[in-house]
Amino acid sequence: MNFDIKFDFQRRDRLGLIEAIWGQDKSIDQLERLCGNVLSKNEVVFITRINSEKANYLLDLYDDARFHEEANCLLIGKNFNKIITNKKVAIISGGSSDLAVTLEAQLALEIYGVNCQSFIDVGVAGLHRLMSQLEEINKYDVLIVCAGMEGALATVVGGLLAQPIIAVPVSVGYGVSKDGETALNSMLSSCSPGIAVMNIDNGYGAAMAALRIIKSIS
Amino acid sequence: MNFDIKFDFQRRDRLGLIEAIWGQDKSIDQLERLCGNVLSKNEVVFITRINSEKANYLLDLYDDARFHEEANCLLIGKNFNKIITNKKVAIISGGSSDLAVTLEAQLALEIYGVNCQSFIDVGVAGLHRLMSQLEEINKYDVLIVCAGMEGALATVVGGLLAQPIIAVPVSVGYGVSKDGETALNSMLSSCSPGIAVMNIDNGYGAAMAALRIIKSIS
Amino acid sequence: MNFDIKFDFQRRDRLGLIEAIWGQDKSIDQLERLCGNVLSKNEVVFITRINSEKANYLLDLYDDARFHEEANCLLIGKNFNKIITNKKVAIISGGSSDLAVTLEAQLALEIYGVNCQSFIDVGVAGLHRLMSQLEEINKYDVLIVCAGMEGALATVVGGLLAQPIIAVPVSVGYGVSKDGETALNSMLSSCSPGIAVMNIDNGYGAAMAALRIIKSIS
Amino acid sequence: MNFDIKFDFQRRDRLGLIEAIWGQDKSIDQLERLCGNVLSKNEVVFITRINSEKANYLLDLYDDARFHEEANCLLIGKNFNKIITNKKVAIISGGSSDLAVTLEAQLALEIYGVNCQSFIDVGVAGLHRLMSQLEEINKYDVLIVCAGMEGALATVVGGLLAQPIIAVPVSVGYGVSKDGETALNSMLSSCSPGIAVMNIDNGYGAAMAALRIIKSIS
Amino acid sequence: MNFDIKFDFQRRDRLGLIEAIWGQDKSIDQLERLCGNVLSKNEVVFITRINSEKANYLLDLYDDARFHEEANCLLIGKNFNKIITNKKVAIISGGSSDLAVTLEAQLALEIYGVNCQSFIDVGVAGLHRLMSQLEEINKYDVLIVCAGMEGALATVVGGLLAQPIIAVPVSVGYGVSKDGETALNSMLSSCSPGIAVMNIDNGYGAAMAALRIIKSIS
Amino acid sequence: MNFDIKFDFQRRDRLGLIEAIWGQDKSIDQLERLCGNVLSKNEVVFITRINSEKANYLLDLYDDARFHEEANCLLIGKNFNKIITNKKVAIISGGSSDLAVTLEAQLALEIYGVNCQSFIDVGVAGLHRLMSQLEEINKYDVLIVCAGMEGALATVVGGLLAQPIIAVPVSVGYGVSKDGETALNSMLSSCSPGIAVMNIDNGYGAAMAALRIIKSIS
Amino acid sequence: MNFDIKFDFQRRDRLGLIEAIWGQDKSIDQLERLCGNVLSKNEVVFITRINSEKANYLLDLYDDARFHEEANCLLIGKNFNKIITNKKVAIISGGSSDLAVTLEAQLALEIYGVNCQSFIDVGVAGLHRLMSQLEEINKYDVLIVCAGMEGALATVVGGLLAQPIIAVPVSVGYGVSKDGETALNSMLSSCSPGIAVMNIDNGYGAAMAALRIIKSIS
Amino acid sequence: MNFDIKFDFQRRDRLGLIEAIWGQDKSIDQLERLCGNVLSKNEVVFITRINSEKANYLLDLYDDARFHEEANCLLIGKNFNKIITNKKVAIISGGSSDLAVTLEAQLALEIYGVNCQSFIDVGVAGLHRLMSQLEEINKYDVLIVCAGMEGALATVVGGLLAQPIIAVPVSVGYGVSKDGETALNSMLSSCSPGIAVMNIDNGYGAAMAALRIIKSIS
Repeated sequence: MNFDIKFDFQRRDRLGLIEAIWGQDKSIDQLERLCGNVLSKNEVVFITRINSEKANYLLDLYDDARFHEEANCLLIGKNFNKIITNKKVAIISGGSSDLAVTLEAQLALEIYGVNCQSFIDVGVAGLHRLMSQLEEINKYDVLIVCAGMEGALATVVGGLLAQPIIAVPVSVGYGVSKDGETALNSMLSSCSPGIAVMNIDNGYGAAMAALRIIKSIS
Repeated sequence: MNFDIKFDFQRRDRLGLIEAIWGQDKSIDQLERLCGNVLSKNEVVFITRINSEKANYLLDLYDDARFHEEANCLLIGKNFNKIITNKKVAIISGGSSDLAVTLEAQLALEIYGVNCQSFIDVGVAGLHRLMSQLEEINKYDVLIVCAGMEGALATVVGGLLAQPIIAVPVSVGYGVSKDGETALNSMLSSCSPGIAVMNIDNGYGAAMAALRIIKSIS
Repeated sequence: MNFDIKFDFQRRDRLGLIEAIWGQDKSIDQLERLCGNVLSKNEVVFITRINSEKANYLLDLYDDARFHEEANCLLIGKNFNKIITNKKVAIISGGSSDLAVTLEAQLALEIYGVNCQSFIDVGVAGLHRLMSQLEEINKYDVLIVCAGMEGALATVVGGLLAQPIIAVPVSVGYGVSKDGETALNSMLSSCSPGIAVMNIDNGYGAAMAALRIIKSIS
Repeated sequence: MNFDIKFDFQRRDRLGLIEAIWGQDKSIDQLERLCGNVLSKNEVVFITRINSEKANYLLDLYDDARFHEEANCLLIGKNFNKIITNKKVAIISGGSSDLAVTLEAQLALEIYGVNCQSFIDVGVAGLHRLMSQLEEINKYDVLIVCAGMEGALATVVGGLLAQPIIAVPVSVGYGVSKDGETALNSMLSSCSPGIAVMNIDNGYGAAMAALRIIKSIS
Repeated sequence: MNFDIKFDFQRRDRLGLIEAIWGQDKSIDQLERLCGNVLSKNEVVFITRINSEKANYLLDLYDDARFHEEANCLLIGKNFNKIITNKKVAIISGGSSDLAVTLEAQLALEIYGVNCQSFIDVGVAGLHRLMSQLEEINKYDVLIVCAGMEGALATVVGGLLAQPIIAVPVSVGYGVSKDGETALNSMLSSCSPGIAVMNIDNGYGAAMAALRIIKSIS
Repeated sequence: MNFDIKFDFQRRDRLGLIEAIWGQDKSIDQLERLCGNVLSKNEVVFITRINSEKANYLLDLYDDARFHEEANCLLIGKNFNKIITNKKVAIISGGSSDLAVTLEAQLALEIYGVNCQSFIDVGVAGLHRLMSQLEEINKYDVLIVCAGMEGALATVVGGLLAQPIIAVPVSVGYGVSKDGETALNSMLSSCSPGIAVMNIDNGYGAAMAALRIIKSIS
Repeated sequence: MNFDIKFDFQRRDRLGLIEAIWGQDKSIDQLERLCGNVLSKNEVVFITRINSEKANYLLDLYDDARFHEEANCLLIGKNFNKIITNKKVAIISGGSSDLAVTLEAQLALEIYGVNCQSFIDVGVAGLHRLMSQLEEINKYDVLIVCAGMEGALATVVGGLLAQPIIAVPVSVGYGVSKDGETALNSMLSSCSPGIAVMNIDNGYGAAMAALRIIKSIS
Repeated sequence: MNFDIKFDFQRRDRLGLIEAIWGQDKSIDQLERLCGNVLSKNEVVFITRINSEKANYLLDLYDDARFHEEANCLLIGKNFNKIITNKKVAIISGGSSDLAVTLEAQLALEIYGVNCQSFIDVGVAGLHRLMSQLEEINKYDVLIVCAGMEGALATVVGGLLAQPIIAVPVSVGYGVSKDGETALNSMLSSCSPGIAVMNIDNGYGAAMAALRIIKSIS
């Protein structure tokens, strides 16, 4: 059984983006072959949802590999598509359980050269935490909101601030909120106007959506 | 096919509550027989989810019937179980689409002699509407929060006020929030501590839960 | 039972947006009271998901009311928040069954002064229909993609063009795609990077998300 | 990547409650940092859903940490918000499989100084077990009912006793009752009037709902 | 387009049962053709879930047709498969909203010559209603329990009585219990041992299950 | 608001198929415009899921329109893509309630010149009905199996016959089988090897899948 | 935290059944305490869904404990409630993957003294396997049908044989049939009349339902 | 507890197919007994979804066993049912995460002597990858399309090529696409005509569906 892998090397030209590699459903063997293939074409490697075991294997293989453990991401190579922009993204999250998703988004923006700031633990159960930072958050050009449980943070931010808002439901919680579906549906149903939503835990996708906006602004 | 209806006439003694009649799934004929049966035992009639057509039929039959159209409720008789209390209930709702549920709750409390106030349209997409009335709402002893869409109002109220809170999801909306399940799951998943939740659109049940609390306080 | 409606009149100042009125779950009587209240404050009225019967009633009441029947929207007043921009939005849809959602989005952008163009019936089952207009679509600054059934259009557009993309699942179809959930989940799961998604049939929300972007650009 | 954790230290003043820490989705490292942060402000630590491994790590670090293994909870510090009350809470559960949830509720009430009693294994498949203790249960002021499977216990208790009732569905069982959703929906659908419901397995939340009631009584 | 209908005329010999006709999804025209076909073979007609309009059309056509309106059933012909038995079936139901399902079961048993009694409105929210009739119900050989909402009646009966029990969930209620799925799942999850369950609203099927038992006993 | 409809006129060349029009979600006005557009290009019109009211309107407009009421389909024009083949398709259905889906499939094959035969009412509850026609069915080259309820017919046919089998779940039934999802999942889960499945009620799609096979054979 | 376990020791008198212990959600410690409690009252222990590790611990403790590994059941003590009957139960299963459920049912009947026979691997994808044993199966008085995947076996058996039939969906399979829900819904939707259904994998419950029938016959 | 396994040895005669063994839910012990039974009748063994541990055990037992690790399949024996055909199957997949399913399909076809080619990683997010191989793919007689995430590949292929198409949803992804249900529903809802769908991850079944077609062609 012979077959070729067809990595999307043209994506950089077409969309100004590189193709990220989804690490979770791939074996170490598949990841190794894929990295070899990608690096041989002088393209950079960005793997998301990679666990420590797989990451350590690749860290041993490649000198310039960097593992961001709290973001579950691994990078190899340097030729990322930096863009020139003074636009900034704020990533706001409801609780420290949302950290991995938040950091995945932040990392994905930083490799493109976008200035980011994470505002952690500003969930609306203690509204003062958000209100006290609102003026600071308002200085950013695009807002990413990460929240699990009932996801109410997206609605409150969306009602207070006028920027483009990208909401990311996070799969933390238990019972009816266990898999992030409640946060997802809550964000899709938000009473605040114009909140756009990503798949559950899709921090990387939120970064790409923000990047599309930043690039159209810059 | 012969059979008797067994209305729960002992509920008044056992729980201090009368049995309400669920009007939606009953025919006019069934409602008429049920009313006759209940009134013949000198018990009062409280029908919820009754439409105009059924209500008008009963209004013609019984002189002392009162139809509260916006609450979809019909009452017959006067011997309601008034309790002596100075405790008050605030019913807070996210939008005017939640009105029927809000008014069903208010009516069900008022027939027991409980002082109620409805605070309509204080949804958190425009947070100032809630904040400007917070001090007033804080004077009430028990809070019922009715909201559809993403139901974020329950979380925000629950994070700001210390009273017992009963949340009622409302089946307004479209797409993923159409049947009220998103609001329900959102309220069950609230980050604010100690929010208790009723079935979708169950304004009457929320009133009964509040009444159980009021009676244990009074 | 006395209560006040609290329309969000401050939204214009806070977000640069007016509050739209969701017509579907409101009675004619509720709509009339709401319109009177809003117009008395010199605010404009924008009602979505309003049927002909309710619309005709309001058309009789207000001289300057305009009913856009295919978009199921009714407008009263003229003081919309026009913005000054040369940015343009393309609204791309998979089939003519998606028309109402497409036109709701278009109308909501036009009242803010944004230049829009709808590209109807470019579903990917006949890929040439999209490919032949790709160059034209690429001239627009923000893309809204409306599609029912399996929603594959969003993925194909997202893989070909670099603009910000807002995807709107539409509730057309039958069997597993009846309520738009398949299109919704398909768009959320798109392999194309950075596609942000709205609730099912939420053309209005997509317009507001586009407007947030346009305003941050302009 | 730098960021601050924003614990809700003001909750004690605002609601009379401390913020509990959800242990399940946090790493040992995150828990350690969080405990250090909280204790440095002289606030107490209450961690729920913490397993033995994480608990033992923290027990080694902090002399005054106490691990309640059957309740999956860990406490550090002594400055809990004891309230003065003679009101008592009964926690009634359907089977011994519900024990962890039952004990989480009991512990959360006891740290606030509330007198509690658990009535275990009184499921309605053997109705006599409940009936023989009914008189005793009736001496309590607030009732928490924990049950998995079909959750019928809440309905039977709610039909017999007049106190405020907080129902907690438990995720024990198999097949259609595996995740606790059947018990949840069953409790929400109860024919008994005024039963308020918490998220699945949310013993802590039930305690907080009871505490809100106790405090409004006391 | 030519085709024959293949009614299962051999079922009487094979199973001792006739084939019932499901009336809900068939047009008047289809029902008329089917009745003609069945009656021409000297077989009897038993149509379930038939509304008044369809029933009245057939009542005009066939002299010996009988419409049982509250059971939504229509019978034509007399040659039903009466069995000789002194075994009796009790049909117990939680509320008068379950009436149609209860009566469909009763009718389906009576045409086979089985002695039935319906016990209506003995829902467990008022437990005394069931307890006061328990001795009487215990005289019956097979028990059918019909209940909507949370379906707790099946568990309580199943814990008290030793007969074969067939539970029928009923699609009454609202919110999470609207379509009868909560009652179905609740009955399937019952803590009482050996309760067998039918599809939602399937009174006819419950009768057939009871009949299989009665025939194996007699 | 100006826009063009883009019918897929090239599908005939590309796939050898015409584009059918889904009638259910389109207004009479939309259908009229679409028919005019299609016919002006000398293409034929095939509308599925069209009700009598819409069909009669178009029958009045176009002389050569034919309405197949039991199949809910309307045809205009004669230039269908007849293929030359001696291959035959059998359409097997479980009950007469599945008739509309069965006939939609048959009609869609016949307009392409494919010889079809429907075998109605051979559901496996009375297995002899299928067994007695098995030899006849075995003479056909491709089998389409339509069934609602539990859809067991597909498994039994698939275990007995070696032809290509296309299964179509049908939305007849009640309770858990109401929307055809049980039949769909049952067919997807079939123990018989190599059964391919269409969307619920998609008789037209099954015909197109059969046509793809027939054309590859012929 | 002190509490008593309330085992249902009266069930033997009330229903003629002992209470089985659900082993899956209990710790070794809980099981040990429960066994000690039950055995001290001279009652027998029957634990279902117990894994090898827990079973071996108890085997070491109790001399007369017997572990039935393929049925995942453990018995301690001898005083089971044997009944005197010549009635027999056939347990029919679709595939060898259903074995554990099948054997749990068989064991639960045998401890009550009921004569059982299992017919394994007679799935309807190879119909001849069932047909060749039909005459033999017909000698049994009650039929239990265990099947996963699409569960069609229940329908075919129910259409061929007249005995009481208890269907048990089994959680084998993948994709849409992974958790047994497809088999469950398929059995509930069966076209064959009078098939009663248990929860997924509930072999024990099916045995108890059969026992209720056997006892009412004997 | 004695019982026989009834393998479907007649399937080869009836359908021209052997019975495959589903390895995932069977223990090593069950697999060993089954292999012994099957091989003793000179039938070949084809086990799908078998992990390395179980496979290695059987590799030790049987000299001619072959384990295809990436396809999770194990074969024993040589007497496969090779057919004589010049027809070829293309297996097209969206990403390298779909590899196991793709290879299971390829292997299952090759053992019957069918010529296959896999086209990996041609997902439509980078449309050029598919377009550049379209002419090559068009040389094949039957197309199998494997895709996870949103499954849009099936629609695009189905709109471009006229062959019989069998779509296989794959359970890769996260959030709403985690279990493959989104890909499944997307494929069932495809706008492209005549796409037939298999259960999630059912590569083997797709091969059998293709084989039914190939055999009817050849």
